[in-house]
Amino acid sequence: MNGAESLVRTLVDAGVNTCFSNPGTSEMHFVAATDQVDAMRTVLCLFEGVATGAADGYGRMMGRPAATLLHLGPGLANGLANLHNARRASTPIVNVVGDHATDHKRFDAPLNSDVEGFARPVSGWIHSSTHAATVASDAARAVAASMEGHGQIATLILPADTAWEKAGGPAPPLERPRLNPPDPDAIKRAARALTSGRSSVLLLGADGLYGDGLRQAGRIAAATGARLLCPTSTPRRERGSGRVPVQPLRYFGEHIEEDLAGVESMVIAGARPPVSFFAYPGKASWLTPQGCEITYASQDHESAAVALAALANELGAPADPSHLSEHATSLPADTDPLNQFTAGAVIAHYLPEGAIVSDEATTSGIGPALSTQTAAPHEWLSLMGGSIGQGLPLATGAAVACPDRKTLCLHGDGGAMYTLQSLWTQAREQLDVTTVIFSNRAYAILSIEFGRVGVGLPGPNARSQLELQNPELDWVKLAEGMGVSASKSSTVKAFREQFEAAMKARGPHLIEVEL
Amino acid sequence: MNGAESLVRTLVDAGVNTCFSNPGTSEMHFVAATDQVDAMRTVLCLFEGVATGAADGYGRMMGRPAATLLHLGPGLANGLANLHNARRASTPIVNVVGDHATDHKRFDAPLNSDVEGFARPVSGWIHSSTHAATVASDAARAVAASMEGHGQIATLILPADTAWEKAGGPAPPLERPRLNPPDPDAIKRAARALTSGRSSVLLLGADGLYGDGLRQAGRIAAATGARLLCPTSTPRRERGSGRVPVQPLRYFGEHIEEDLAGVESMVIAGARPPVSFFAYPGKASWLTPQGCEITYASQDHESAAVALAALANELGAPADPSHLSEHATSLPADTDPLNQFTAGAVIAHYLPEGAIVSDEATTSGIGPALSTQTAAPHEWLSLMGGSIGQGLPLATGAAVACPDRKTLCLHGDGGAMYTLQSLWTQAREQLDVTTVIFSNRAYAILSIEFGRVGVGLPGPNARSQLELQNPELDWVKLAEGMGVSASKSSTVKAFREQFEAAMKARGPHLIEVEL
Repeated sequence: MNGAESLVRTLVDAGVNTCFSNPGTSEMHFVAATDQVDAMRTVLCLFEGVATGAADGYGRMMGRPAATLLHLGPGLANGLANLHNARRASTPIVNVVGDHATDHKRFDAPLNSDVEGFARPVSGWIHSSTHAATVASDAARAVAASMEGHGQIATLILPADTAWEKAGGPAPPLERPRLNPPDPDAIKRAARALTSGRSSVLLLGADGLYGDGLRQAGRIAAATGARLLCPTSTPRRERGSGRVPVQPLRYFGEHIEEDLAGVESMVIAGARPPVSFFAYPGKASWLTPQGCEITYASQDHESAAVALAALANELGAPADPSHLSEHATSLPADTDPLNQFTAGAVIAHYLPEGAIVSDEATTSGIGPALSTQTAAPHEWLSLMGGSIGQGLPLATGAAVACPDRKTLCLHGDGGAMYTLQSLWTQAREQLDVTTVIFSNRAYAILSIEFGRVGVGLPGPNARSQLELQNPELDWVKLAEGMGVSASKSSTVKAFREQFEAAMKARGPHLIEVEL
Repeated sequence: MNGAESLVRTLVDAGVNTCFSNPGTSEMHFVAATDQVDAMRTVLCLFEGVATGAADGYGRMMGRPAATLLHLGPGLANGLANLHNARRASTPIVNVVGDHATDHKRFDAPLNSDVEGFARPVSGWIHSSTHAATVASDAARAVAASMEGHGQIATLILPADTAWEKAGGPAPPLERPRLNPPDPDAIKRAARALTSGRSSVLLLGADGLYGDGLRQAGRIAAATGARLLCPTSTPRRERGSGRVPVQPLRYFGEHIEEDLAGVESMVIAGARPPVSFFAYPGKASWLTPQGCEITYASQDHESAAVALAALANELGAPADPSHLSEHATSLPADTDPLNQFTAGAVIAHYLPEGAIVSDEATTSGIGPALSTQTAAPHEWLSLMGGSIGQGLPLATGAAVACPDRKTLCLHGDGGAMYTLQSLWTQAREQLDVTTVIFSNRAYAILSIEFGRVGVGLPGPNARSQLELQNPELDWVKLAEGMGVSASKSSTVKAFREQFEAAMKARGPHLIEVEL
């Protein structure tokens, strides 16, 4: 058994049985090893940003890592933007990067680069294997490292000779790291903060937004009347009818200041105090109201869900949440104009129970987010690090993780261009992903931001940088070019028919919504 | 005048009047400044790897830098693979990366990252501006730094507040750094090496492969009988009829060993001794024959062209090269099978004089490279860092630099998927680029490499990682989806007609060659 096979067997034994890959010559022994280890599913991606974004979607849904397989420094570099996003989502990923053979490095061949240097800004753990005999234990350590805290990126660099030389065999899995139990004093302080009579909010993140964590937050709201909020973007959030409703903060700083106006006490579980996404001349970065007391029920290395359960019990909260979202959808008239709000209403009406929504619709996302609050229960995955081009890969990975659930990807046209190669992987794997492209032929957020930074109206040169016109993108052709069936909607009627059909069918489909 | 406008004016004054951009909110002041400074041409790219690869193509053709405009760390990350390639080409690039405002950094907003960390592995020079008043001089220094040696990447990080705050005005350009004159002793040693009676080769790179440098190499060959060789990949090389012929070393190490068998003396100007691209079990990395003496006529910080002129004079070489490539092309029969050799013959026949060829055809590139040796004179740009996905952006940037010349991009289908967004920029700018996609529906090089690394034949899992089948890509739809007209050839007749038409027309067109 060579080092590569010992690596693949160790990964599988540790529960890492899916690999999103874009290999090169230096990774051929890893590829060959997958012929020996059928339990490892390799999913080919035609660009590395697809592989890393898919590993993010997979890891968010499974709570355990997928592996990537990337080709040397430049292959890693192509995957960094979505690793940045995954880092912000605290997603566990075992990021396997090939490197030149140890003896070959000093010749500085064309693909030689500082692999560790590229990896450092996104990785919580980095190791470069030094010998085939230790690759297996390096892999076991990487899997455990990826699950530290709520999750992080563990980058394992694999020089080619450590893959091809003889190894002893696979290594047994390490124990999965556990999150710390909540601090009883912190729970008491949080309980006091919520019962002090001041205007209070509970800001939720991480595992406080799904499963038992969300239910416990509902108990706390029932006991205290605290408003339940969450950050603008969250890695994974259960919502829809029958779920405890949580209000996300809006995007722009001044809107968050409005959302928090008058709040005197903010209790946090699994999140951070809100800050402005960008800085603007004369606008605030720190958005917690002056004088508002911040109390942490849990810290980053603790489970928000467990802390919320302890807090609910400390408060003597009722056994169940008192307020759950109702179910309410209504279709627009066929003659209504097609826009993000009418499209959102259609989406909410047909969204099947248990759907996973990957949301990178940015300026077109408000309508769908509003309408689906009372749609069938579903999960919502946001863009976490702000680096656009995450939505399509994220949906791809979520669909690999959850083949029995419908995955819906809501995406702006500008952002979708960064990682459109995702569609090919969806076609090859016949993933059950419906992609809705909101085609406004602009970086619409930038047109808004241009106004906000105080430079007046854009002239012709600036407009050329904000608009995606001349030529217009044709998403039907782009999707079909990668083997994904596609259709275009320019009326409510067309979108209703196309979206309903996509929800009832299985397999990948793309709908371009012409705004 | 704010910092951004002082930056743009300084760049223009220093001769940097083209910017390949993919901006975000933190770069809006730069974008606004382009409305004030019409002399700066901004070329929007829908993915950062297109912007950096285009800056490489532009810089190679112009011998001076374009600027990029990238959005924070993740935007830079998306551009790193082609910056790696540009670093290997020694291309001057002023790589402008926005960052959060200085005061905003500490809030660690979602897009915050280690921008300098991402930039370090590819940059020869990095500076993060600290104040609007110094941005202009930082820009002048960045332009000069980018032209150190044969060229390098100068990364200028621009925190948003240094862009929006008040600046004094533009800074005057710094003097352009000059390459060192050749070392007279090195020239004498090289002359002795070439006249020692041993079997000698002259290995050429950098500015030894075009213009006067290439002519001087021809004089040296005429005087000494030395074979003229160059590395497998070269940034910019003049070839075709009437040019001094130079033989590139082949790709695989054992072929290079054959190419160099019996060589006793290797004189180098502007290149490095050849090494294997990858390491393989039991195969050599260092490819210079044992006992062969290596003599440097020029080092990296010297001009190869000036050194070659000095060496030719030292040798008392004749005033002109004695051997130039003939002009010879011949069309295949319409009934011949369409493959890289018949396609190459068609390409050579119709290639117009002065064409620029961006070559990333990898396994399909041998036929076109052979046939075009005796085509009309042209320039050839190779993939320098081995990170595939350079060819389309490189052609885009070369076409921006040289609007009066036909640019031809030869590309494999696998590599073209990494940066296919280039086609949109070609359509928007109406660039005169003809793209030929050699569609073999595989990472064909990897199928070869799989055999070479000694792991037997690929099984079904491995094959799924090497083949781009199921589904097949449709390059006509992909191109049309981005506004580029396209056609497919599956016969010699079709390709001949389509390629001839493309050479006679202007503007972007794509031809998919079905292999």
